[in-house]
Amino acid sequence: MQQKRTIVLLTDFGTGDSFVGQMKGVILTIAPSAMIIDLSHGISPQNIAQGAFVLEKSLPFFPDGSIFLAIVDPGVGTSRRAIALETPGHLFVGPDNGLFSPVLLRGNVKQCVHITEKAFMLPSRSHTFHGRDLFSPVAAHLASGVPVSSLGSEIDPSECMQNAIPPCRVLDDGSTREGTILFADHFGNLVTSLEAAFAEGPDRWVVETARTGPLPLFLTYADAEEQQPLAYAGSSGTIEIAVRNGSARDRFGLEPGDPVRLKKR
Amino acid sequence: MQQKRTIVLLTDFGTGDSFVGQMKGVILTIAPSAMIIDLSHGISPQNIAQGAFVLEKSLPFFPDGSIFLAIVDPGVGTSRRAIALETPGHLFVGPDNGLFSPVLLRGNVKQCVHITEKAFMLPSRSHTFHGRDLFSPVAAHLASGVPVSSLGSEIDPSECMQNAIPPCRVLDDGSTREGTILFADHFGNLVTSLEAAFAEGPDRWVVETARTGPLPLFLTYADAEEQQPLAYAGSSGTIEIAVRNGSARDRFGLEPGDPVRLKKR
Amino acid sequence: MQQKRTIVLLTDFGTGDSFVGQMKGVILTIAPSAMIIDLSHGISPQNIAQGAFVLEKSLPFFPDGSIFLAIVDPGVGTSRRAIALETPGHLFVGPDNGLFSPVLLRGNVKQCVHITEKAFMLPSRSHTFHGRDLFSPVAAHLASGVPVSSLGSEIDPSECMQNAIPPCRVLDDGSTREGTILFADHFGNLVTSLEAAFAEGPDRWVVETARTGPLPLFLTYADAEEQQPLAYAGSSGTIEIAVRNGSARDRFGLEPGDPVRLKKR
Repeated sequence: MQQKRTIVLLTDFGTGDSFVGQMKGVILTIAPSAMIIDLSHGISPQNIAQGAFVLEKSLPFFPDGSIFLAIVDPGVGTSRRAIALETPGHLFVGPDNGLFSPVLLRGNVKQCVHITEKAFMLPSRSHTFHGRDLFSPVAAHLASGVPVSSLGSEIDPSECMQNAIPPCRVLDDGSTREGTILFADHFGNLVTSLEAAFAEGPDRWVVETARTGPLPLFLTYADAEEQQPLAYAGSSGTIEIAVRNGSARDRFGLEPGDPVRLKKR
Repeated sequence: MQQKRTIVLLTDFGTGDSFVGQMKGVILTIAPSAMIIDLSHGISPQNIAQGAFVLEKSLPFFPDGSIFLAIVDPGVGTSRRAIALETPGHLFVGPDNGLFSPVLLRGNVKQCVHITEKAFMLPSRSHTFHGRDLFSPVAAHLASGVPVSSLGSEIDPSECMQNAIPPCRVLDDGSTREGTILFADHFGNLVTSLEAAFAEGPDRWVVETARTGPLPLFLTYADAEEQQPLAYAGSSGTIEIAVRNGSARDRFGLEPGDPVRLKKR
Repeated sequence: MQQKRTIVLLTDFGTGDSFVGQMKGVILTIAPSAMIIDLSHGISPQNIAQGAFVLEKSLPFFPDGSIFLAIVDPGVGTSRRAIALETPGHLFVGPDNGLFSPVLLRGNVKQCVHITEKAFMLPSRSHTFHGRDLFSPVAAHLASGVPVSSLGSEIDPSECMQNAIPPCRVLDDGSTREGTILFADHFGNLVTSLEAAFAEGPDRWVVETARTGPLPLFLTYADAEEQQPLAYAGSSGTIEIAVRNGSARDRFGLEPGDPVRLKKR
């Protein structure tokens, strides 16, 4: 266990408001030597699937012992549970709404706790901002050495909300896989749930949506002509759809949840 | 006094440009061990009232000894003064234009100084970016242990600009309070200047604007139906207007400065 | 050499996605005590000239020994080289596409290396995100004390891509200088490549574009009337065009690359 714990923030709060800044103030008040890293605050408001995807795909790039504080929380103020998870490498704190489902599906959760212990929350808690009043102080106490088991009662990980991201399915022809558009990134590239590893021998496959027709699978943007649409293995390991030096989101108007297929030529 | 001082940044500079990055470079050059936290850089350009509100409402969430470097500065390059304030818990550095008025209204300012000492500024100063050339080095020197009194001559806090936020008023009926819309947050929720604490027994009150008609006061978003407009006590302790899973700003077109009333049913 | 090295990030990745967060995770895994500062992630997608300008103009504001990790990289995945530069004050890591041309033009590069040593990259590298998989680990290894010369073979700085920013030229009348609009900042001010130092005796000069007509050169925004267009010496030392309390970008529709002239009245 390192001396200086890293707390990694992932939210849909944006960076324009003071939400994230106040969370950091709360964390530093409790754990002055914590290292706080912003993974992203640009998850689309309330897009739990996007948050779940970004969280799990980012795990390999953070130091062992990192504490992930993840909040995409449309049910804030309701009876949805606050949970903490421990895996061999990391700790996780956030709402029980599916945000951690890909982490849970990895099957290596050592401990899963329903957070109820008020001693580790702010004394006064709003009904709309548990990120600041509940989750941040809990993460800071974990960074200060409080064990996960002190936060509340242990629950079975299988009781937690599952399947934030619709699983891909194999169509009747036995080789076509159908997944969904998850979100568009800053460049307008469309990130999908289709694992790129399925497309062995990329030149034998195409990627297809209702609005694009079949797209070639290229190695990188630069293999396409200027303004040509293409598919490629994105940096998270899933298929992405782009327009070279353009925006696939703006060009095709595809939305999160729209289906996308990986099929043989 | 802690060893490692926290400098909290609040500006209307956005994060797209290099303004904030250059400020951080200046701070670290002078005070290499300072901990720099972004409270927000998303104050609407030149919206002093929003900056003043966000600053004061965020104070409780930061460690004792924090130095707040706050810059919303339409008068940069004019004769508006640069000031530094000391309160029992915190230090403040920024322009004298009302940004610190809610801090001043708290009435616990121990020292208020007109910053004139050039030794604590960059040797070469632009006319448009005092955030980098004047305020950042001053904050960094404070973090390094320079006392507030060294920055210039003491002035009476009452000489500083006041009332960035129009005070709420009680209407003739004796129970209705009128405040203003201050700004819209990232989710499109409209933050008002009406203290929520006035609405004792929330179900006996409604919140009203010219464009919304009367809105119920709910505990949290989830108490409303999908796309229903509502009012609630926001995380800063004032009334906010929202649309569940929607944007009140886009739906109603209310602007900062528009009146809003809290009245008995 | 300071103990705790500063790594300064400059990219066109935006802050909405997890790109920058993953880069920080990679850096901290390799160099846990590095101090990471965001200079900007708001360079317009693939605007190398803007990145080159912002990088070079920001150098004076960062501590000696800072490592600049700069990525605006439309050619990612192609054969464009990855390079590292060492100057007396700083280190630089990024793609060889002109982004470092103003640094190279300063003429004080001590060492210039084509990065090829895989031991300092992530073992698995995507074709689209060298920022995370190649440049971040290299910068982190530099922060941990790896010498630039270990990264690959030395090359002559003159072999590197030059002239990302079109040089200003003197027109036939011998006194008029023509430069270009480089980008618009957060406030809608248009930053140009015209060095303000050429305009000695500012009141004898005007700034002109095809869409604005001649504009007066003022000292600061506040010298103009409300909504009046003006030119002034920006905080980077070049001429900028603004509209007082308005947006010059929105008002005039000028684009990066459009010509702008500084001429005698």
